[in-house]
Amino acid sequence: MIDRIPVLRIEDILLVSIQVDLQDHIAIQLQDDLSNKIVETGAKGVLIDISGLSVVDSFIGRMISTTASVSRVLDAETVLVGMQPAVAITLVELGLTLDGVRTALNVDRGLRLLRADIATRNLMSGAGDDRSFG
Amino acid sequence: MIDRIPVLRIEDILLVSIQVDLQDHIAIQLQDDLSNKIVETGAKGVLIDISGLSVVDSFIGRMISTTASVSRVLDAETVLVGMQPAVAITLVELGLTLDGVRTALNVDRGLRLLRADIATRNLMSGAGDDRSFG
Repeated sequence: MIDRIPVLRIEDILLVSIQVDLQDHIAIQLQDDLSNKIVETGAKGVLIDISGLSVVDSFIGRMISTTASVSRVLDAETVLVGMQPAVAITLVELGLTLDGVRTALNVDRGLRLLRADIATRNLMSGAGDDRSFG
Repeated sequence: MIDRIPVLRIEDILLVSIQVDLQDHIAIQLQDDLSNKIVETGAKGVLIDISGLSVVDSFIGRMISTTASVSRVLDAETVLVGMQPAVAITLVELGLTLDGVRTALNVDRGLRLLRADIATRNLMSGAGDDRSFG
């Protein structure tokens, strides 16, 4: 019924709202779409919302970690938002770690975190440029 | 498997990304969640993304129109974004009209449209306030 998860663009940030159980082919398609869209749009941040998921297992956890790693190679930071309390408890109890993924409470806060991060990175790359003139 | 569609908040705009066929109970739940969230957050705009839908029938069309009407009563404008070309063609061929719903190409443009709209409304209500002091 659903064959792909849309990747939405908000300025230089991409938003993915995961609402269905991620089967293998959807997860692969998502990673493909997301990395293509990062390259295509030059996005600097990725926001993954899982508020629609009541269960997050090790497969989804690994998928999110991999997505974050791929995005980082493409110069985009990933923030995971909308985690339900029960999901957070399960993740800790199962000892699942989301390597390289920062979290924020909701989309609004995640967007602010990413924007601050992007502004800092722009400043730093700007400072680097300035120094070359010094 | 999916029992509700998450309503995401971006500043004073709510974003709903519809990715699955809207069955009756999901549609009702969505209208409920959305109107509650408008009241709770004081949101001024609603963005409905249907880029994940390859088919839009009269039921979904009516649901979107009703949602827009309910949101307007609660002082929030609705913009529909992400319509696939085939969906646009079908809507016109079937003679389905989305009453009271504006459209934009994608989330990014829809957000800009809503922000401009909100700024205008704020200005106009500001002008109204000023006049009462005149």
